[in-house]
Amino acid sequence: MDRIRAQYELHCPPTAAAPLAEAVAHELTVEIPPALVPGGFVREQVLARTESLGIEALGEARHALELSFSAPLANRQIPQLLNLLFGNASMYPGVRLVGFELPPALLDAFAGPRFGIAGVRELCCATPGKALLASALKPRGIPLEQHEANAEAFAAGGGDILKDDQNLVDDSQAEFAHRIDRIATAVERGRERAGRGTQYFPHVAAPFEELRHRLEAVVDRGLRGVLLSPHVLGVDTARGLAAEFDLAFMAHPSFSGSYTVRHEAGLAPWVLWGQLWRLAGCDLSVFPNRGGRFDLSDEDTARVADALRRPWGALRPALPTPAGGMGFDNIPRMVGRYGPDTALLIGGALLGHGPDLGASTREFRAAIDAA
Amino acid sequence: MDRIRAQYELHCPPTAAAPLAEAVAHELTVEIPPALVPGGFVREQVLARTESLGIEALGEARHALELSFSAPLANRQIPQLLNLLFGNASMYPGVRLVGFELPPALLDAFAGPRFGIAGVRELCCATPGKALLASALKPRGIPLEQHEANAEAFAAGGGDILKDDQNLVDDSQAEFAHRIDRIATAVERGRERAGRGTQYFPHVAAPFEELRHRLEAVVDRGLRGVLLSPHVLGVDTARGLAAEFDLAFMAHPSFSGSYTVRHEAGLAPWVLWGQLWRLAGCDLSVFPNRGGRFDLSDEDTARVADALRRPWGALRPALPTPAGGMGFDNIPRMVGRYGPDTALLIGGALLGHGPDLGASTREFRAAIDAA
Repeated sequence: MDRIRAQYELHCPPTAAAPLAEAVAHELTVEIPPALVPGGFVREQVLARTESLGIEALGEARHALELSFSAPLANRQIPQLLNLLFGNASMYPGVRLVGFELPPALLDAFAGPRFGIAGVRELCCATPGKALLASALKPRGIPLEQHEANAEAFAAGGGDILKDDQNLVDDSQAEFAHRIDRIATAVERGRERAGRGTQYFPHVAAPFEELRHRLEAVVDRGLRGVLLSPHVLGVDTARGLAAEFDLAFMAHPSFSGSYTVRHEAGLAPWVLWGQLWRLAGCDLSVFPNRGGRFDLSDEDTARVADALRRPWGALRPALPTPAGGMGFDNIPRMVGRYGPDTALLIGGALLGHGPDLGASTREFRAAIDAA
Repeated sequence: MDRIRAQYELHCPPTAAAPLAEAVAHELTVEIPPALVPGGFVREQVLARTESLGIEALGEARHALELSFSAPLANRQIPQLLNLLFGNASMYPGVRLVGFELPPALLDAFAGPRFGIAGVRELCCATPGKALLASALKPRGIPLEQHEANAEAFAAGGGDILKDDQNLVDDSQAEFAHRIDRIATAVERGRERAGRGTQYFPHVAAPFEELRHRLEAVVDRGLRGVLLSPHVLGVDTARGLAAEFDLAFMAHPSFSGSYTVRHEAGLAPWVLWGQLWRLAGCDLSVFPNRGGRFDLSDEDTARVADALRRPWGALRPALPTPAGGMGFDNIPRMVGRYGPDTALLIGGALLGHGPDLGASTREFRAAIDAA
């Protein structure tokens, strides 16, 4: 295979499917009416090729389209890959990107996760064969001392990864450096008590001009990971920042749900939070769990996890990090569903479990280990 | 007004509206269950405040919600503003952001368009009181000589702004610098013949690490503007790049349509292509025209244009740049609808109008001037 392949669902009456398929093929590549497309190179190598169109192959008014693209059209970079696979098609109400494959020579352009599952597990000194327990510092607005106490308790209780809430944002570099130092110190106190390797991943959102300074502060403090929101910062901005620094990259879905939330348009969850983010180098992909506040189906979440973990060229696998909807009682079910190479991100349920966050963390930790 | 205000449409049964409003208010700020929100500062200053909820105020199962937020929660930056106004709410299938207002002290944090409408008009030596004619170099894959010939013809015919197609992307800095130099030279030849001020805006998509070099090449070549796709590169990445260089910033909607395409979720078109992009400093906002391949309503496009041009603190107005659906015959209607402070982006229709692009451009130019 030397061409890029992409699968789309088309949602329209059956008679409209073939014209829509042709429109999408033109839209994504030559962006001129079919009559104006020059023969030769442009028609043969630039215009997307319709590999197959299965009218109503997916159900009533749901059609399966596969396009292929010449690999050089992606220019070995994520921004142009986004243009090519879905740029202007994002404006079509009945077109959804549900998968893509890159030829090996193009896939080689992307370094993918720096740590991968094995690297993150090692970083956290995670118990072999057991899922990781992750949580979030929140809410914004409580005194720093209280965040510190929570951070220490979570680490002492045996949590693996503590991230900032994506609303924890500081006005300046100095405030950021001060805050993450205090939290990091608290995590260090807690993990010494527990004899574990709890990692703290600060959240970085900042004006473009300041992003690299924030990451430098994270590295300077000796921290090993960071939380970035690819669709708040830009997918390739997040990739580029993570690639520059020796940090594990946890990706947060803030501002990305609009791509997945309507099934007739946008991107399938496993394309967005699975393939695309792994290509962009995320080591941990946070996505909304089945049964949480944002309802995905079991099949959706299983496919996200699979896209993050399955063999894919030389790209390391990334840790599925489902979030939401995990109470103490359904830990066994979650571990059963996702398996051990998963980080369960449990925020509110952990905070609400009891008055002693350290004890709650120990209980959740034990439930995960027993599952 | 010292708080941020944001308006949402909720799409759900009437009995679900109040719980959904409460869920969104929590989701966007404290992100913990209501029972866990501490009293005092967090409940009063961090938790979003529900200003009003009009059950079925917008129609059957369509409710109007207004939330307000304490201004410091946005940290005077676009990434955190995205988190705050819509970050996790993007994952709710029935929540759409339809407007926002920032208090003056927060609005001051954003420089907005560098050139604005007056500046872009001046740059192009545009005919006073007449709409601008813009077009795109395409398709990718034709010989550079043909792009050059098209560029010269468009400039000689009296076009105002020529941009690259968003698929025109180069593999390296050297290829980019070479290509834009050739096109720029062709545009210069054409505009000398026409005695006008046609501007050429190259498209920049590149790996994060190379973006600034591309912009430097644009400046080094003496060009005055650039085409960036905010949702391909990141909204604040585009803003930051445009702010660093003395370039007019034309924003392209590639990969952004998923936010607007389904009316029950995402962002209203005028929030995305109007308010948000203007805040991010775009001088020209390209958005899908009514009647084009991507169908927006007349009201939608009028509201996008209004959001770009209406008085808004110290922010300069930006040029609405509707694209698509503009044939020669409906130029008068388009000019009538959008008014003179508009750039009509006409690609395929201009290329397909006749065999002589220079003559076609003159005809379109004359039709705009006569309208």
